[in-house]
Amino acid sequence: MYGVLSLLLIVPAALCSSSFLEPRKFSLVSRGTNLDGSLPTYKNPNASIDDRIADLLPRMTLEEKVAQIIQGDIDGWMNTADPLDNTLVFNQTGLETELSTKAGAIWAGYQMPYEKLVFAITTGQTYLVENTTLGIPAMFQSEGLHGFPDNGTMFPSPIGMAASFNPDLLSSVANVIAMEAEGLGYSELFAPVLGMFRWGRVEENYGEDPHLTGEMGLAYVTGLQTGTRRNVTASGSKRMAATCKHFTAYGSPLGGLNLAPVVGSERDLRTIYLPAFKRACLESLSIMTAYSAYDGNPLVANKHILTDILRNEWNYPYFVTTDAGSTDNLINQHKTCATRECAAKKTIEHGLSGEMGGGTYTYLTLPDQVAAGTVNESYIDQTVSFLLRTKFTLGLFESPYPYPDYLSTIHTPESREVLLQMEEEAIVLLENHDSLLPLSTDIGSVALIGPQANRVTFGDYVFFNASNFGITPLAGFQEFLSNVSSSTKINFAQGCELWSNDQSGFDEAISTAQQSDVAIVMVGTWSLDQTLLWTPGTNATTGEHVDLSSLDLVGAQLPLVQAIVNTGTPTVVVFVSGKPVTEPWIQDNANAVVQQFYPGDLGGLAIAEVIFGAVNPSGKLPVSFPRDVGTTPDYYNFLNGQRLPAPGEILDNGTLVFGHQYVLNSPVPLWSFGHGLSYTTFNYTDLQILPANISTTDNFNVSVTVQNTGSVDGKEVVQVYLSDVVSSVVTPAQRLVGFQKISLAAGSSQTVSIEVQSEQLAVWNLDNEWEVEPGVFTVQVGTSAEVFATADLTVT
Amino acid sequence: MYGVLSLLLIVPAALCSSSFLEPRKFSLVSRGTNLDGSLPTYKNPNASIDDRIADLLPRMTLEEKVAQIIQGDIDGWMNTADPLDNTLVFNQTGLETELSTKAGAIWAGYQMPYEKLVFAITTGQTYLVENTTLGIPAMFQSEGLHGFPDNGTMFPSPIGMAASFNPDLLSSVANVIAMEAEGLGYSELFAPVLGMFRWGRVEENYGEDPHLTGEMGLAYVTGLQTGTRRNVTASGSKRMAATCKHFTAYGSPLGGLNLAPVVGSERDLRTIYLPAFKRACLESLSIMTAYSAYDGNPLVANKHILTDILRNEWNYPYFVTTDAGSTDNLINQHKTCATRECAAKKTIEHGLSGEMGGGTYTYLTLPDQVAAGTVNESYIDQTVSFLLRTKFTLGLFESPYPYPDYLSTIHTPESREVLLQMEEEAIVLLENHDSLLPLSTDIGSVALIGPQANRVTFGDYVFFNASNFGITPLAGFQEFLSNVSSSTKINFAQGCELWSNDQSGFDEAISTAQQSDVAIVMVGTWSLDQTLLWTPGTNATTGEHVDLSSLDLVGAQLPLVQAIVNTGTPTVVVFVSGKPVTEPWIQDNANAVVQQFYPGDLGGLAIAEVIFGAVNPSGKLPVSFPRDVGTTPDYYNFLNGQRLPAPGEILDNGTLVFGHQYVLNSPVPLWSFGHGLSYTTFNYTDLQILPANISTTDNFNVSVTVQNTGSVDGKEVVQVYLSDVVSSVVTPAQRLVGFQKISLAAGSSQTVSIEVQSEQLAVWNLDNEWEVEPGVFTVQVGTSAEVFATADLTVT
Repeated sequence: MYGVLSLLLIVPAALCSSSFLEPRKFSLVSRGTNLDGSLPTYKNPNASIDDRIADLLPRMTLEEKVAQIIQGDIDGWMNTADPLDNTLVFNQTGLETELSTKAGAIWAGYQMPYEKLVFAITTGQTYLVENTTLGIPAMFQSEGLHGFPDNGTMFPSPIGMAASFNPDLLSSVANVIAMEAEGLGYSELFAPVLGMFRWGRVEENYGEDPHLTGEMGLAYVTGLQTGTRRNVTASGSKRMAATCKHFTAYGSPLGGLNLAPVVGSERDLRTIYLPAFKRACLESLSIMTAYSAYDGNPLVANKHILTDILRNEWNYPYFVTTDAGSTDNLINQHKTCATRECAAKKTIEHGLSGEMGGGTYTYLTLPDQVAAGTVNESYIDQTVSFLLRTKFTLGLFESPYPYPDYLSTIHTPESREVLLQMEEEAIVLLENHDSLLPLSTDIGSVALIGPQANRVTFGDYVFFNASNFGITPLAGFQEFLSNVSSSTKINFAQGCELWSNDQSGFDEAISTAQQSDVAIVMVGTWSLDQTLLWTPGTNATTGEHVDLSSLDLVGAQLPLVQAIVNTGTPTVVVFVSGKPVTEPWIQDNANAVVQQFYPGDLGGLAIAEVIFGAVNPSGKLPVSFPRDVGTTPDYYNFLNGQRLPAPGEILDNGTLVFGHQYVLNSPVPLWSFGHGLSYTTFNYTDLQILPANISTTDNFNVSVTVQNTGSVDGKEVVQVYLSDVVSSVVTPAQRLVGFQKISLAAGSSQTVSIEVQSEQLAVWNLDNEWEVEPGVFTVQVGTSAEVFATADLTVT
Repeated sequence: MYGVLSLLLIVPAALCSSSFLEPRKFSLVSRGTNLDGSLPTYKNPNASIDDRIADLLPRMTLEEKVAQIIQGDIDGWMNTADPLDNTLVFNQTGLETELSTKAGAIWAGYQMPYEKLVFAITTGQTYLVENTTLGIPAMFQSEGLHGFPDNGTMFPSPIGMAASFNPDLLSSVANVIAMEAEGLGYSELFAPVLGMFRWGRVEENYGEDPHLTGEMGLAYVTGLQTGTRRNVTASGSKRMAATCKHFTAYGSPLGGLNLAPVVGSERDLRTIYLPAFKRACLESLSIMTAYSAYDGNPLVANKHILTDILRNEWNYPYFVTTDAGSTDNLINQHKTCATRECAAKKTIEHGLSGEMGGGTYTYLTLPDQVAAGTVNESYIDQTVSFLLRTKFTLGLFESPYPYPDYLSTIHTPESREVLLQMEEEAIVLLENHDSLLPLSTDIGSVALIGPQANRVTFGDYVFFNASNFGITPLAGFQEFLSNVSSSTKINFAQGCELWSNDQSGFDEAISTAQQSDVAIVMVGTWSLDQTLLWTPGTNATTGEHVDLSSLDLVGAQLPLVQAIVNTGTPTVVVFVSGKPVTEPWIQDNANAVVQQFYPGDLGGLAIAEVIFGAVNPSGKLPVSFPRDVGTTPDYYNFLNGQRLPAPGEILDNGTLVFGHQYVLNSPVPLWSFGHGLSYTTFNYTDLQILPANISTTDNFNVSVTVQNTGSVDGKEVVQVYLSDVVSSVVTPAQRLVGFQKISLAAGSSQTVSIEVQSEQLAVWNLDNEWEVEPGVFTVQVGTSAEVFATADLTVT
């Protein structure tokens, strides 16, 4: 688009807005004012949102309405090709053209110098506010899964933040992300991702459990949205629009192939895929639909889910958007439409959603379709109303612009503090044979080995070269030891690459391990930033459109671990990964195993803190780790009757020990959901269900006393699992219904009370209704599968 | 049960029936006769079946009715522990006790000498017919998946017979099986299995495709049932009750774990799981329900499927039975019942089915439940009526006994002829690089290598030591070469065991290959007979309750193949297996690859005939062969949008070539459904759709001319695939709608016309109804994915 330089008008920024010309099609100026000169209701911040929408909508032409629900892009007036370019110029023709048909929400998620970004957003917003008839500001949009992706603070990938089991902390993280983006002029971020990811893009999600995902999603939405934009007084009550995605069931595609159809029933929809969205997103100012089809019905135009459930059952009042190019997928992928007209009609009529770019802009056909009578304008009106409600709730009419002091809210000391705590709490101690960990800072020498040791591995949805801003584990170890004035020496040897079978570095690594008191081998998966991930010729093993057929370590990594363990030097294996790694040999043979899901900027420091015990690990697995891809699905909340373990195995010496489920393996995971060790121990006593007998509409409390019975302070995630002893339909053998993270000083104890809502007991019955069925429920309270206390709840 | 010998009454068989005493509870003799001494209608073979049922049912006590719908077992009066024992004795107390409460259908599927089996069945049947008030004969039951499992002819496993794509031949097979069982006194066999097996017990089924499974199932049911029992005149119209199982969706359990729940929607049910049953089983005299739950609702008590669909939509009028122990599974596995009373009530009221043994006989609670008013007797009446209809249709009242000349119908020359043809047509030629095959009978020397070479490997559902009656490939090769007076020498070396990593036999195998003109390496999976399969301490890699987490060759088999290929001797690899084997290396590196699904008695001979070209292979794959378990599901009829191949791979030298779908693999199978080569070539011309424009209720014909363009005679399976170009819901990218197997002499041609029914065009729409949608359909005609001709069909 920017190959022809003559298209660019190079003018000082200050002159730009005054040089804009009102496009002729917006010349009916009176629609933006009242005839008596008074302020139209829609411009009155003290009017109710309902009144403002009711006032504004009738003032809009059909073309203006359609323009509201087609996503624009700042590349319509800015050169976005070079992330380092800082030329403050824009293309006026492009600006006018772009915003004449795409003006409701504007994609601005480019990496560019802040000055240019603010210029771009200000230019577009100024045009809309001052040079269009109605002056409706746009939402400027970016990503925000685990940090604002234009040189903002990078937090651990969502799967890692889920491992913290700490919603309050996640809420603080989201607040930082909103703060960093808001000053630059953004008002919508595309996060959180709430798939029940049992495969696929695991790193972008909060794991395999509906309850955990719902709680973490709610924390994220709340943290991102809470607050008000500057200059906003009355109706604007949220600072930033979260965008729950991808609605829904996107996380369980056939074959683990991104975009592939999802198989499931209404029961699966209600019990697995919808609960997290219902919990987290009713107050989210936006929702994005999924690419996939659910039960044969593409989500982008799924009336049952987007209208019947979301709008009519849940009364969701805010903006829904499609994902990039997904309307066209009705033609290209799902084959439920032959034409763009059909794609637009089905999407607006069934989905009541705006159309994102990335495709052919099928919504451009809507004005003609309304004129031809094939689409009823009322669908467009409804959709615009939802978008306007989001904008009014943001106070966007009162506060459309970037803030002049935007730099003051990026990379603050407070941001770093939140980041470091999240890095620390995201680390999961999986195995700790003979309490090898924590290492003494006086241990003498540590071999730091492996392709993840001197590398920053972020997950996807980070900006180009974001990892340059992170600290490597090698640097983190050195910094940590230096800070505590330790003389322990770090001996580094990479050993191999992540992406190769080349073992030529093994000798050096082995010799390094042999010369050290302990070896730490860091291996795992890797993703790429949003630029490289889509660049031909790069490689990655996780992330969007990166689908694995095996969860084993790639290349020479397992042989490297085996070579180091075989030296006899006590060996800690650290997985840095965005997905479960399936290596039973490491579970059996390493002295300790630590899981660090893709970290953020300070991951290299946090892993050192945990290894040396400055931080007592408190993370818990949000996903189960299968023994092999062939033993999936292995989520912990499997249905009654599903897991029949009569395992076999292949011994290290090659001996085959035959079983039945499976013949040479086991469906029981290496480590199950909720698992995570500590450097201290916890004991659970005095479990009480209060009351232990309830009616079908009562809530109840689970009370338990937790004691830190070890010698160091620690944090514990108290987990409450429920089993429906007998029910009308098959239910999960167990499922999480509550959790609370607490800090306990060594020797101290605390009584924790966790409330469970009546509706959490319900089954989706054979009449397709939620029903709390009388009967007995077993309540298990403890940490992961290691249950410390069990009690019965009776519902009558 | 038979530990106490004193329980056994040893009396001559001839005396047994006269020594029986009428149990007191059946003393109301008049119910079995008319007061005027005339023949009751139910005993009148010339009365209509409806009249016979209407006459009999009111004569029955509640206890008699319940006894009809609980499966009895000949082990109630016979010692069945020792399959070699031929003592003609029975336990009279046991007989009376057993048949007082379990008298409708009797399990007699034990392996025992025929004389004893006939004695056992005669004893039980005589008691029922002559010594009970109403004289209702029982159906005596056994298995019959691929042969009558008491020293009957063993045919290839169903998956192999499906590879023949020859329904007429399968019908002949079923006729042989019925003939062998009927003389011995059986009237019901538990076959066919119609799961859409995409995993799990693949060998028992007809593959991954609904249409193929339906056609083969219909052929089997028809072949088994067609004919009349001896002495049957009017109402008895079928010789043997087929038992379609397991109704339904049993073949796609979570994790590939036998018994595990199946995830799916009403759409999946209607489009994937039900069509084969609807096609094959409406005339089947019995249906068996599945162990698993579908969409949270256990099949054994699934009102929607067993009553709403099977009885009310399909009007199925015959007997439905549960599977062994599956009523108790409502308590133990599915946890939808707490008591046996609940299990019985749900099963009879929702399923209208009889109860098989193997559990606690929950139906024994029914009389008390009727008395207590918790179960309405009308459900029992309906279920008994269905069973009586099956019995009257069999003519069982007229022909309840074994035939004295039963030996004349077992292992006949005609049986052998049908068997050998099925063995030949079941073999699939997968690869034939440089036309290595067929081998000349004058080639000189052939190395026959591998753990499958001197072994008979049957699938499951065969009798104890059945493989002793089969011919090994080694013996088959020798017999074949001897029959054609060839001097070609067979050099045998086993190389390794199926179940071990021991490579100590490799040297001998390598040297054997080096000394031969060509090497044939036979490897694969293995199952066990019905005795050994359930014996602790045995091993197997396929069969019931034998679940794999990997489809790779086990143990030293792949290294053996590699060692032989690396000798440079041209190498043919033969997979003898019950499942797809996932070995891309073999596809790439062997000179030829042949698939022999588990064969029958003559498999060792048939493989020799194919290898040496006496038989031109004509089998086609009924299942796709994935590249790895991690690339499943890979069925050919994947949904639009599912398969996104941007493959990567790991080269033989260890180099990693990165892709995206998948990172280091591909979702495209090694060999897809329908694939199978021939020693000749076929060309397809003159494809016509007649008519090419139809209404939504019209059938159409696909006409195509097929020419054998090679130099040898051959059989070809003409396959018709359909794609719905645009539809309201997501449909498969392609699906089989018709096929026909033809024989073509070298150089000759034939025009084939295949009719497709209007309803085969239908989608299960969003309103949950079948609908033929106007639009264009693409018709592809040819062999597997190698399409020779394409045409459009327009529906208006």
